[in-house]
Amino acid sequence: MTDFRTEKDSLGEFKVPAAAWYGIQTARAVENFPISGRMPDTDFVRAHVQIKLAAAIANTQTDWLTPIQRDAIVSACERILNGEFIDQFVVDRFQAGAGTSHNMNTNEVVANLANVTLGSDKGSYTPINPNDHVNMGQSTNDTIPTAIRLALLAKLPKLLAATHHMADAFDALAVQERDTVKSGRTHLQDAVPTTLGREFAAYAWTLRRVADNLAQVRPLLCATGLGGSAAGTGLNTSPNYAENVAAELAKLTGEPIVVGHLAAQMQSMFDMQAISAAIRGLALELTRISNDLRLLASGPRTGLGEITLPAVQPGSSIMPGKVNPVMFEMLNQVCFQVLGQDAAVAYMTQAGQLELNVMMPALGSALFDAMDWLTNAMRVATDKNLIGLIINRDRCDKFIHDSVGLATLLNTSIGYARAAEIAKESEKTGKPVREIVAAHNLMSEAEFNKLVLAAAHGVGSGGGGG
Amino acid sequence: MTDFRTEKDSLGEFKVPAAAWYGIQTARAVENFPISGRMPDTDFVRAHVQIKLAAAIANTQTDWLTPIQRDAIVSACERILNGEFIDQFVVDRFQAGAGTSHNMNTNEVVANLANVTLGSDKGSYTPINPNDHVNMGQSTNDTIPTAIRLALLAKLPKLLAATHHMADAFDALAVQERDTVKSGRTHLQDAVPTTLGREFAAYAWTLRRVADNLAQVRPLLCATGLGGSAAGTGLNTSPNYAENVAAELAKLTGEPIVVGHLAAQMQSMFDMQAISAAIRGLALELTRISNDLRLLASGPRTGLGEITLPAVQPGSSIMPGKVNPVMFEMLNQVCFQVLGQDAAVAYMTQAGQLELNVMMPALGSALFDAMDWLTNAMRVATDKNLIGLIINRDRCDKFIHDSVGLATLLNTSIGYARAAEIAKESEKTGKPVREIVAAHNLMSEAEFNKLVLAAAHGVGSGGGGG
Amino acid sequence: MTDFRTEKDSLGEFKVPAAAWYGIQTARAVENFPISGRMPDTDFVRAHVQIKLAAAIANTQTDWLTPIQRDAIVSACERILNGEFIDQFVVDRFQAGAGTSHNMNTNEVVANLANVTLGSDKGSYTPINPNDHVNMGQSTNDTIPTAIRLALLAKLPKLLAATHHMADAFDALAVQERDTVKSGRTHLQDAVPTTLGREFAAYAWTLRRVADNLAQVRPLLCATGLGGSAAGTGLNTSPNYAENVAAELAKLTGEPIVVGHLAAQMQSMFDMQAISAAIRGLALELTRISNDLRLLASGPRTGLGEITLPAVQPGSSIMPGKVNPVMFEMLNQVCFQVLGQDAAVAYMTQAGQLELNVMMPALGSALFDAMDWLTNAMRVATDKNLIGLIINRDRCDKFIHDSVGLATLLNTSIGYARAAEIAKESEKTGKPVREIVAAHNLMSEAEFNKLVLAAAHGVGSGGGGG
Amino acid sequence: MTDFRTEKDSLGEFKVPAAAWYGIQTARAVENFPISGRMPDTDFVRAHVQIKLAAAIANTQTDWLTPIQRDAIVSACERILNGEFIDQFVVDRFQAGAGTSHNMNTNEVVANLANVTLGSDKGSYTPINPNDHVNMGQSTNDTIPTAIRLALLAKLPKLLAATHHMADAFDALAVQERDTVKSGRTHLQDAVPTTLGREFAAYAWTLRRVADNLAQVRPLLCATGLGGSAAGTGLNTSPNYAENVAAELAKLTGEPIVVGHLAAQMQSMFDMQAISAAIRGLALELTRISNDLRLLASGPRTGLGEITLPAVQPGSSIMPGKVNPVMFEMLNQVCFQVLGQDAAVAYMTQAGQLELNVMMPALGSALFDAMDWLTNAMRVATDKNLIGLIINRDRCDKFIHDSVGLATLLNTSIGYARAAEIAKESEKTGKPVREIVAAHNLMSEAEFNKLVLAAAHGVGSGGGGG
Repeated sequence: MTDFRTEKDSLGEFKVPAAAWYGIQTARAVENFPISGRMPDTDFVRAHVQIKLAAAIANTQTDWLTPIQRDAIVSACERILNGEFIDQFVVDRFQAGAGTSHNMNTNEVVANLANVTLGSDKGSYTPINPNDHVNMGQSTNDTIPTAIRLALLAKLPKLLAATHHMADAFDALAVQERDTVKSGRTHLQDAVPTTLGREFAAYAWTLRRVADNLAQVRPLLCATGLGGSAAGTGLNTSPNYAENVAAELAKLTGEPIVVGHLAAQMQSMFDMQAISAAIRGLALELTRISNDLRLLASGPRTGLGEITLPAVQPGSSIMPGKVNPVMFEMLNQVCFQVLGQDAAVAYMTQAGQLELNVMMPALGSALFDAMDWLTNAMRVATDKNLIGLIINRDRCDKFIHDSVGLATLLNTSIGYARAAEIAKESEKTGKPVREIVAAHNLMSEAEFNKLVLAAAHGVGSGGGGG
Repeated sequence: MTDFRTEKDSLGEFKVPAAAWYGIQTARAVENFPISGRMPDTDFVRAHVQIKLAAAIANTQTDWLTPIQRDAIVSACERILNGEFIDQFVVDRFQAGAGTSHNMNTNEVVANLANVTLGSDKGSYTPINPNDHVNMGQSTNDTIPTAIRLALLAKLPKLLAATHHMADAFDALAVQERDTVKSGRTHLQDAVPTTLGREFAAYAWTLRRVADNLAQVRPLLCATGLGGSAAGTGLNTSPNYAENVAAELAKLTGEPIVVGHLAAQMQSMFDMQAISAAIRGLALELTRISNDLRLLASGPRTGLGEITLPAVQPGSSIMPGKVNPVMFEMLNQVCFQVLGQDAAVAYMTQAGQLELNVMMPALGSALFDAMDWLTNAMRVATDKNLIGLIINRDRCDKFIHDSVGLATLLNTSIGYARAAEIAKESEKTGKPVREIVAAHNLMSEAEFNKLVLAAAHGVGSGGGGG
Repeated sequence: MTDFRTEKDSLGEFKVPAAAWYGIQTARAVENFPISGRMPDTDFVRAHVQIKLAAAIANTQTDWLTPIQRDAIVSACERILNGEFIDQFVVDRFQAGAGTSHNMNTNEVVANLANVTLGSDKGSYTPINPNDHVNMGQSTNDTIPTAIRLALLAKLPKLLAATHHMADAFDALAVQERDTVKSGRTHLQDAVPTTLGREFAAYAWTLRRVADNLAQVRPLLCATGLGGSAAGTGLNTSPNYAENVAAELAKLTGEPIVVGHLAAQMQSMFDMQAISAAIRGLALELTRISNDLRLLASGPRTGLGEITLPAVQPGSSIMPGKVNPVMFEMLNQVCFQVLGQDAAVAYMTQAGQLELNVMMPALGSALFDAMDWLTNAMRVATDKNLIGLIINRDRCDKFIHDSVGLATLLNTSIGYARAAEIAKESEKTGKPVREIVAAHNLMSEAEFNKLVLAAAHGVGSGGGGG
Repeated sequence: MTDFRTEKDSLGEFKVPAAAWYGIQTARAVENFPISGRMPDTDFVRAHVQIKLAAAIANTQTDWLTPIQRDAIVSACERILNGEFIDQFVVDRFQAGAGTSHNMNTNEVVANLANVTLGSDKGSYTPINPNDHVNMGQSTNDTIPTAIRLALLAKLPKLLAATHHMADAFDALAVQERDTVKSGRTHLQDAVPTTLGREFAAYAWTLRRVADNLAQVRPLLCATGLGGSAAGTGLNTSPNYAENVAAELAKLTGEPIVVGHLAAQMQSMFDMQAISAAIRGLALELTRISNDLRLLASGPRTGLGEITLPAVQPGSSIMPGKVNPVMFEMLNQVCFQVLGQDAAVAYMTQAGQLELNVMMPALGSALFDAMDWLTNAMRVATDKNLIGLIINRDRCDKFIHDSVGLATLLNTSIGYARAAEIAKESEKTGKPVREIVAAHNLMSEAEFNKLVLAAAHGVGSGGGGG
């Protein structure tokens, strides 16, 4: 049987589980928001607690809090940051606009922990009051967007590392397959010779480009509106508070936190939308690359079959011996959901009104999931399927000699129009281009084969790229 | 300490927790897909088990299974449907393309339960084999899309009920406020007189229209491709199996399940996309209505303030006495995420290739969440904030007499051009239109007030509309 | 040199080109909205004029207009409907919220035409006034959404016909290729035998399903809010006007126009969003089908090559003899832009506020383009590339005998586990399944080939589906 | 009557209008793609011609073209760049995948112009051949994505300038209204005092932040894949061609064009997607700001009415004297369509396959429209409605003294809990907070008013922000 204590706020009394470290406003929110059953993201919980900790220090620097108050708050925060009490953060991902419920959840847990340490009771809210002391100089308006920023900054390195990890795997394959000549395909049609190495190198190059673009969002996220308190005015904040608390947060997080425009940074979700857009860019490229890999691995007999994705589990409940490209199918699915998260973020970004954007809790949540899922998916797909990728060089070799696209190699010697006739003859007769070339006495088959190799490697071409 | 048993499949041996009712393929999938940590939707788990149960019966009708095999499988399925073993469905929401892992999870749990009942051991897969007996005549290709359909059908009535529940609340308010005259606003600018009753009635009418549209998707969902087995060919299915299993499913679910095009219904996610689109329609209207309610409730002093949304919790951590429209802010957030889910569903719908769409697991999951979250959010917003909505009739009354839009009432008597001059005089002088009308000897203030009332109620107008 | 006349409205004087049939408010709008340079959709211009015509008749039925006024207005409208003066509709697609500018453009053109007919001058606005007579009982609030509905209804049959035209082409191919056995592919991997006929039939079946779903939107579009005049109140409308004007419109358009909720139908764009969603459903399926066709046509040597899309132009500026699947690439591009139009429509749908959605002009425009472009693209792709599609039956035949997926045919005789061993042996040795089957004395190659044919046709399977 | 000449290509003969400067492949494309009727974007036409010009120079540097050939090609290009013959670019926006048709259109027009200059006939294609000379060392694969990049670079400065122009207007308003105290609103509810100056400054700050983010895309766009020719291999290009042509383009455009990864930059549309995402960010902020302005301007009597957007045209066809916020409604609509363009771009970005993304023509078109429309809309909205914005200071003043949010000012003196009681008393009694404060002997009304002013200006607060 659950035991309750009764607490009181401006709306009256309400029951709180006796064991709970949170208080009345959290309990009200639990009742108000039975939506998804999903608790808050852990990085977000931590980030918000870091703000409480930094604020306590900053407020003590101007003597708005006493060292005793500070120490009690700081110690409570540190216990949470060390992993305790994470189960006390209980408000649904879909909750009060702007996150007032989560802010009060933190304020209450910290206050109760601090008060018990100081010899007082849970629910007493004295000597440490959740609003007056833990939330001092703060507002949901500025702590929640700042906590979202910090949580995103905490997740960003992991996502970047997973991206570079995948790029590393492609680069290794590019080196390994530098000399694997194969037919290029444009419009899915036979095109000119290329190498598997060039294909893998292009994926690696693009992924690093995407990662660099993603990394550029970091300074945007570091410019917080903390210190704006209510409505970005800085009301009820102590002198130099915004700068002081930014400095503390920089120490705590290792990120170059600076003070942005206090009013703008609580009404505008532009920076969060910017990281979402950068993640979208990653998801779009990963979708394309996953599709390509699954296409190159199609077969084994009725598809392209130039590569084989290592088997990680039987592929079918009915087709014996079937192996499916499950890792990249999974990555495809994650990417599509990430695109959905981004669509949600965009909608929420445009929904700010006047001094505030109240959609922040769901906006943050959508982003947190996107980053975690994508990080996990990229890492496991790389480890289980790119590292160890099997190359079917015979297949590549067969295709390159079949390809009608080889006629392009004749352009500079006989012109586009005559080369087109060779191509048509090859397609019509089913004979390889090299045979037709030889039959027309344009060059020997051996000379033509040499030309193919040179073309694939870009020898004699004016391009430097990959 | 966890104890393991070792099982074997076509890829070799793998360890399975000794206590697990699932088997080797599930265990591989758990290792392969550490992505979101989210277990499958319960309605989906149940729907998939219903298919296994129905298939066992259908296969026995043609003597492909013995009554003993059937009974063992049916009994295992019934235990799961009664709520047991739900924790044995452990493969991440992001998993093998098309859901092979979830299909095998079910096949293995059912087989192990059946075998133990028949006196055999977990992991023995005899006399009941997961592929040959539980999955008989089936394939991931046809059971997963069918299970998604059944799960959506299970959720649909709850979503419809929540929509009608909200419409009921608006209808009740419409009746109650039938005579509350207020200023209409178009372009957010003063427009002609209307009634709060008409506004609430419009919301109710639209919500029911949306619900009717949503209900129309039901027959689409009922046309399954079950019986298509691999690639929609019906390979390895017993005579008349597709019809037989549809009949069994209809009995089990109470839905008019019929046989659709076997090949089309596993490659095309059109029907799932159609319900997603209908849910999007609901989310878009709810977004608009929530925005309207929050705008009408803006204030209490610096906004429109025509209504007050009942307080469910203190509104601010810093602004004392503030009450925010948290229930509809929450609904707004849910709607935006639902729009994101729909965007993900659309992407996944177009990604089918040849005989199959492998994006089904994530596609289903996106929809399941959308429906659950929206159902919960609508219900709680209605119960806590529409029922009990406070009307500020004085405020409505004040606005209606201030409104410059009243000049429109003069059109039919003095023409648009002269009425415009009255409007401009009112705006310039700040005097109410009725005073200016009287000053110009067009009619007395009392006569004008009568005109306003009549106009608000649509008396003498040619329109019938609510 | 352009000559001007000067007109006057409530904001003062403004110059209008002397030759123009439109007037001052249109001229202001031309200056105000130099955005896209794109003039209004022709079906929309016509639909809006139909409303003016119907309103003139309805207003005369209640003696609010005289027969002379009516005839002058009706005659002006008929001239426009007959194709004259379309160049007088000059306000940009991006214009005044709700379309006031377009409404006034029509009112002015009709008034000027009527007045000149009645012996008066352009710009005199007497005896026919644009606001008092042409716009009698109307408002931008109700005429614009109604005109959008009518324009969509005008375009719908063309889009449906183009969809069925494509489905017809697939059905013809399905009959023609009923006996073309080929390898199915799931997860892009070798799967069980199927037929080209089944594949084409599935596309046809799905397209008709999509078309039926699209056709279901028609009754939604027919329920107009015309008669709501300002803010859906029906203010300044003559007795029974809403019903009368609906009846006239039904006669003019041949559509079963009825009176919807007057207030709801000007604030809610749900019905327009519903047709957009149905069009999205079509675009998503067309994307998938186009992708499939391009994949099946990949090659000629380095791809699947089971079909060849007829050449309509040389494929490459550099690769001689290359033929690209340009018609379906074009259809892909149109579909993606249509998805963009739909995304825009969704955003605009949720942006309604209180009595009105002011985003209507752009919302309508997005839909008009989507329908026109998709209709054109489907029709030309069908005519130039589906009719006349080339089937490479040898290629299909080669693949079917290579496919490792054939091992599935052994399930019912030797069980999934042993069949998996056969499959692995086939993949490892490169030998066809039939050889291995024969070598293991399971059956002769000829018997196995018979089994393949039977499987492809679904003979002996329990499914009925295509 | 149109006169024709007959040309021939690898598919056979085809009629070309005698007067046309384009040739057979263009004529085929006109017949193949009757989709939107929209001709190509002018910046794109120009950019593509710049590539032809630069390539002719680069190819002459290595003696692959003679000076005579070069001069003829260059001179033809220059005439087009000077504005002649723009009507000869006639292939629909929706066309051959990857833009082969547009590439050939350019090749043909340039060749014909060059040949006629050299004394030959239109359609002779000698001495200058469209494929062998104008397209030398090039491919649709590399010229089209490069032309898209150059066109985007040409449009970017105009979009940035329009953004800064709007920011300038907000900054001017911020300075002007620095001392206009008003009530802040969070959750649309009365919040703490702020200033109109701070609000306008926040908009300006955010717009500049958005512009800076948009400007960051420039280097991405400058890294072209030109020189990759077919499939990114650089086949058939002269020594050092990629670098040479980049240098020429840099001279022609004034942009720091560099050589990117040749293969990656034709298969990946990441950079184009990145500018689309940055434009999306702008559109989302503009949506929010437009919504805010329309809300602040709501009224004149029944809304907030703190500002008045200058009238640019009469607002209603039925409501006399009504003035609507049409400029920002137009901007809202443009933004929503821009979001649609971005959604289309995202879909097209993920649709690349292997060596190429064939969706480029529509992708480019979607972006070109987005940039042009947004540039035009921002500029006209700023000029007609921000410059000259009317401030209703009396209204701001009235609200600030009414606001219940003022109770927050008491937090630091009497604590959150007691301040909440004051707020509740104010709301319940309808009395201003200052009266209640005085009645409770907390401070005089004058002292309280001083506090309000100080709070609005952030005096004594620790925040620096705006």
